[in-house]
Amino acid sequence: MKALVYKGPGQKGWEEVPNPTIQQSTDVIVQMVATTICGTDLHILKGDVPEVQVGRVLGHEGIGVVTEIGAGVTRLAVGDRVILACVSSCGRCSYCRKGIYSHCLDPEGMAGIGWIFGYMIDGTQAEYVRVPFAENSVYPVPEGMTDAEGILLSDILPTGFEIGVQYGRVNPGDVVAVIGSGPVGLSAVMTARLYGPSKVIAIDLDNARLARAKDFGATDTVNSGDPNWRDQVLALTDGLGVDVAIEAVGVPETFTMATVLVRPGGNVANIGVHGKSVDLALNELWIKNIDISMGLVNTNTLGMLLKLVAEHKLPADKFVTHEFSFDQMLEAYDVFSNAADHGALKVLIH
Amino acid sequence: MKALVYKGPGQKGWEEVPNPTIQQSTDVIVQMVATTICGTDLHILKGDVPEVQVGRVLGHEGIGVVTEIGAGVTRLAVGDRVILACVSSCGRCSYCRKGIYSHCLDPEGMAGIGWIFGYMIDGTQAEYVRVPFAENSVYPVPEGMTDAEGILLSDILPTGFEIGVQYGRVNPGDVVAVIGSGPVGLSAVMTARLYGPSKVIAIDLDNARLARAKDFGATDTVNSGDPNWRDQVLALTDGLGVDVAIEAVGVPETFTMATVLVRPGGNVANIGVHGKSVDLALNELWIKNIDISMGLVNTNTLGMLLKLVAEHKLPADKFVTHEFSFDQMLEAYDVFSNAADHGALKVLIH
Amino acid sequence: MKALVYKGPGQKGWEEVPNPTIQQSTDVIVQMVATTICGTDLHILKGDVPEVQVGRVLGHEGIGVVTEIGAGVTRLAVGDRVILACVSSCGRCSYCRKGIYSHCLDPEGMAGIGWIFGYMIDGTQAEYVRVPFAENSVYPVPEGMTDAEGILLSDILPTGFEIGVQYGRVNPGDVVAVIGSGPVGLSAVMTARLYGPSKVIAIDLDNARLARAKDFGATDTVNSGDPNWRDQVLALTDGLGVDVAIEAVGVPETFTMATVLVRPGGNVANIGVHGKSVDLALNELWIKNIDISMGLVNTNTLGMLLKLVAEHKLPADKFVTHEFSFDQMLEAYDVFSNAADHGALKVLIH
Amino acid sequence: MKALVYKGPGQKGWEEVPNPTIQQSTDVIVQMVATTICGTDLHILKGDVPEVQVGRVLGHEGIGVVTEIGAGVTRLAVGDRVILACVSSCGRCSYCRKGIYSHCLDPEGMAGIGWIFGYMIDGTQAEYVRVPFAENSVYPVPEGMTDAEGILLSDILPTGFEIGVQYGRVNPGDVVAVIGSGPVGLSAVMTARLYGPSKVIAIDLDNARLARAKDFGATDTVNSGDPNWRDQVLALTDGLGVDVAIEAVGVPETFTMATVLVRPGGNVANIGVHGKSVDLALNELWIKNIDISMGLVNTNTLGMLLKLVAEHKLPADKFVTHEFSFDQMLEAYDVFSNAADHGALKVLIH
Repeated sequence: MKALVYKGPGQKGWEEVPNPTIQQSTDVIVQMVATTICGTDLHILKGDVPEVQVGRVLGHEGIGVVTEIGAGVTRLAVGDRVILACVSSCGRCSYCRKGIYSHCLDPEGMAGIGWIFGYMIDGTQAEYVRVPFAENSVYPVPEGMTDAEGILLSDILPTGFEIGVQYGRVNPGDVVAVIGSGPVGLSAVMTARLYGPSKVIAIDLDNARLARAKDFGATDTVNSGDPNWRDQVLALTDGLGVDVAIEAVGVPETFTMATVLVRPGGNVANIGVHGKSVDLALNELWIKNIDISMGLVNTNTLGMLLKLVAEHKLPADKFVTHEFSFDQMLEAYDVFSNAADHGALKVLIH
Repeated sequence: MKALVYKGPGQKGWEEVPNPTIQQSTDVIVQMVATTICGTDLHILKGDVPEVQVGRVLGHEGIGVVTEIGAGVTRLAVGDRVILACVSSCGRCSYCRKGIYSHCLDPEGMAGIGWIFGYMIDGTQAEYVRVPFAENSVYPVPEGMTDAEGILLSDILPTGFEIGVQYGRVNPGDVVAVIGSGPVGLSAVMTARLYGPSKVIAIDLDNARLARAKDFGATDTVNSGDPNWRDQVLALTDGLGVDVAIEAVGVPETFTMATVLVRPGGNVANIGVHGKSVDLALNELWIKNIDISMGLVNTNTLGMLLKLVAEHKLPADKFVTHEFSFDQMLEAYDVFSNAADHGALKVLIH
Repeated sequence: MKALVYKGPGQKGWEEVPNPTIQQSTDVIVQMVATTICGTDLHILKGDVPEVQVGRVLGHEGIGVVTEIGAGVTRLAVGDRVILACVSSCGRCSYCRKGIYSHCLDPEGMAGIGWIFGYMIDGTQAEYVRVPFAENSVYPVPEGMTDAEGILLSDILPTGFEIGVQYGRVNPGDVVAVIGSGPVGLSAVMTARLYGPSKVIAIDLDNARLARAKDFGATDTVNSGDPNWRDQVLALTDGLGVDVAIEAVGVPETFTMATVLVRPGGNVANIGVHGKSVDLALNELWIKNIDISMGLVNTNTLGMLLKLVAEHKLPADKFVTHEFSFDQMLEAYDVFSNAADHGALKVLIH
Repeated sequence: MKALVYKGPGQKGWEEVPNPTIQQSTDVIVQMVATTICGTDLHILKGDVPEVQVGRVLGHEGIGVVTEIGAGVTRLAVGDRVILACVSSCGRCSYCRKGIYSHCLDPEGMAGIGWIFGYMIDGTQAEYVRVPFAENSVYPVPEGMTDAEGILLSDILPTGFEIGVQYGRVNPGDVVAVIGSGPVGLSAVMTARLYGPSKVIAIDLDNARLARAKDFGATDTVNSGDPNWRDQVLALTDGLGVDVAIEAVGVPETFTMATVLVRPGGNVANIGVHGKSVDLALNELWIKNIDISMGLVNTNTLGMLLKLVAEHKLPADKFVTHEFSFDQMLEAYDVFSNAADHGALKVLIH
């Protein structure tokens, strides 16, 4: 089969590799019908994630059709069309029992991290993929759902909702700030409405992205390049700060922005993947009764979000700005790697 | 009356000052029968808290008898014996309505911080004190409760419980680590039992303090001077770390200790008052699905803790190691300032 | 002044009565600019609420202007335009500290029920009203809010939201059934959206009311006069029942409907005021892991809902179908007493 | 093998039956080393549970050793000593993902109830048992745990804790009443301490049982045969009622007792298995802001309780009053059926 293979820092190929086979009784094999590219894939390609071995098939998002099932699989059948969660879950360890699939203790190859596709095992940017713990880790595609709607459910939509909105404990009436209007930030903007906020303020350096944030549900926008950006945000509150500040970039500056926007008693929810430590002003913050959360997506809300997307309550397909076929995988990477030039958000390969 | 007066950095006196008088209709005047000294008072005396003006009477903890009431006070009467919460609460602002008294919007002299005694207004190390918002900020002393039991309820016991145990979301069966075995750390150790943990591990550099922590309810102790202290703590868990790590010191090193002890999905609860920022390893922590809380005590659990102390479910009087009369105030300061030499924990002045 | 006076079962008058005066230092006097009539007022007039004394001024909802303040009132001033909460709250008892204002221990005339207007003390269907514990029980009207928007915040909107939606613990993705499409049921329909449900099913016997429910945000409707009404509701779920069943009528039949609609693990939230006991099929329900909640409104979310109405996130004025002047009070009662004939929902008297 | 077989209403035998065999890839076979008898088994024997077929092996509690594993089982091995949860859980349906194992959608023979042992499939009062979904439904016995400690974890201890204490939302400082001092009531008494209540009041008609309740941790006892039993309970509160009333009997009278003891804002937690409907005084209760919960145990806290028992934080072996060998099964039934005569609580068969 053909797959997108990591060939060392800066190098990749759409190449012929052996087809995957069942290895555990709880595995299934899925023929991919749609996949996409994530910022994390770009990080891996740069060589920033040294634990990824040369030869690894990348990708952790996708929709496909089951072609083979392991001996222990009773609820899935060949021919089922399914969405793959980006996080694998054994369903029986102490973490999975609490819904913290991100720290499943049982996946192959790596103890204690549920994300393994395109990382510790071969991923979804391929014609076929082996799916471990399949019964706990895939979801049937509802009748009539398009690939453009479904592909967001693997990762982006749950990430914004779980790690931004839920970890940030958005409540009805809250003023929410979302720093960063990339795919994950926009996912937080779109799903924040599920908890009835009074305002969702998108913050970014790029006015084009801010305009798009409005289309995704932001009620207000602030360009953080403006010297008085903080005052602009506070003016949208009662002057004390936002109830919830969601960080969706992953650099020290934006994390600090979140901590200076949050009101006493409020929450900072970090979604960003950070490469450096940050300076936390505990000398000022210790007295503010705030809470700082962070984490990898669990996909424990995937089933619920799937239902809302199927009922057209969340317009997930808005994220897809470009479409490609599987044999255009390298072009898809080109466009996504230069997202700003192309006005790209998510690319759908199907 | 006599009172302990701040006279500038490094200087204090037990001096004659004017008696306080009713200023707002919601005030009462209380004649103090017991007070104590807090680490914060020592910070102020060093000059570390520049917003405290010369001439300020210090102290924010105490028990006393009501001697005069404002025109708007209907539930308290002259002669009532009451415990003063260290935090003042108007009871009607949006923060007070949520129980976040620490950020009451309405106290005099300072918007948005409920702690004002011995800080923005004259405090409790005095023969008399004016108590603002008295009906929301004092609690009747139950029949038979001693001063040594009651004095802890002003600040220390609620602080360890609310900011350590509750903000840390201790649950039945949890393994809890408490870093620092001073009064606030020991309060977290003692009150953690209210949520049924399986283990409470006290961590400190001083073996004498660790021995005392066992007496306060620690099931295990680890001396953090040992090079393998982290391994010792992990060995008391399933190897993944503690469910809740409570910081009760207030320096960068101990905060970092908490972040390296906590397991994925766990909580770090910072109680310590910090004078410096800390380096937060978000590059390692972003993926751990942890939560970091912090804050000033609300005293919203004071009434509940009072009930448990009155029923001898929490041996609060264990904290009192030394007793003084009011005219020995300066001696009391000497002992508390050199707590290690005297084996002092809390001093009771009554 | 003129007021609507209860003169015994079946009898009322719009009559001259003495003006109210300040009685406690925490009182204010308010000149009413808008009020409305509640189903509870009709019950009282029938004589169903024997503790209401002859001569009582009815009404517990309203907007007005402060004309006089007690000696202990510091935050309100003469001339302030305010919404009166239907429940009075002292702000300092153990119930008020938890936000359970419905069971405030301190109101005058009646221990342990926060609802006293038009019940234990004179109410709001009058030119002037005395408001106890005013600083905790009134909310400033935001600039630009109309009477028709504000009047719903005294009671109806918080009741549907707190006792229906919040006590019923509606979560994103839930299927919610609301039984009864009167004002309170429609309030639950309208405010359920604040927790992102996938479906809100209105259930009623009257198709005209069901049509209106759609306008208030119901996604589906079922006429409970249809013999297969239960099957129709279950067909809108996965077959197991609704996540949350909200009862908004107050008779045994509708309460039982809620218990047969709820899925295992779901919640029944009773808002209805019941005059009779009900037969609860514990023999069938004990195994269903459900939760049944009930209660009087706390109005602890009034401030939050006020913000959402002011920002046009909740179209509260939809409830007002008829308007009257104060001297048309008896006509307003006629219309509201025969709501079905007039298609009336809420009448605004201003 | 030998097993306790239901032979129709009033009839049972300790008889030879075929050994169980693996039927699904997720099954294991366990050789029983300890089992016990539950009140539910007596109900089945009376014929009260018509869905149980003649020939069914009874019992849903037990400890055993794995002797055979299905093809899909990777985490359990032959020779593992395990505790069987009384509820079977597939670990992948929407209910299991939320920890509501009691309503697992996937068990064999019966959709939507996780309890199947000794009910829909053969149970644990036998030499061998087939365990469906074994990896999600059994727990390794820790080194050094006795049968008398472990046997309580299958059902009784989780039932009292989850359905009584957790569903009743016991909080630190609460006054808790537990009605009924049989095994499940005593389990609620014992495990209530995990949430730090100020008082646990045991209520029963039998003074011998009340004396035992004190030994299990009750702080107070009230004999409900006393005409003024309610006043006695209220006198142990502030006069307003208990925070949490736990029903552990299963008849209308005791359920009603719970509703008249609970304070406004409190919780009624029903554990009892009811054979009749009850009259619920909604006309009095609708205004009380209470919550009534009920349900079948989920055993989702079994792992946590196991840890506390292993660390001797919960003296589970107190429940075992009589011990038998497997070939004394019928004698064990005799003693348990006449528990009052023998002072029996739980019988251990091993």
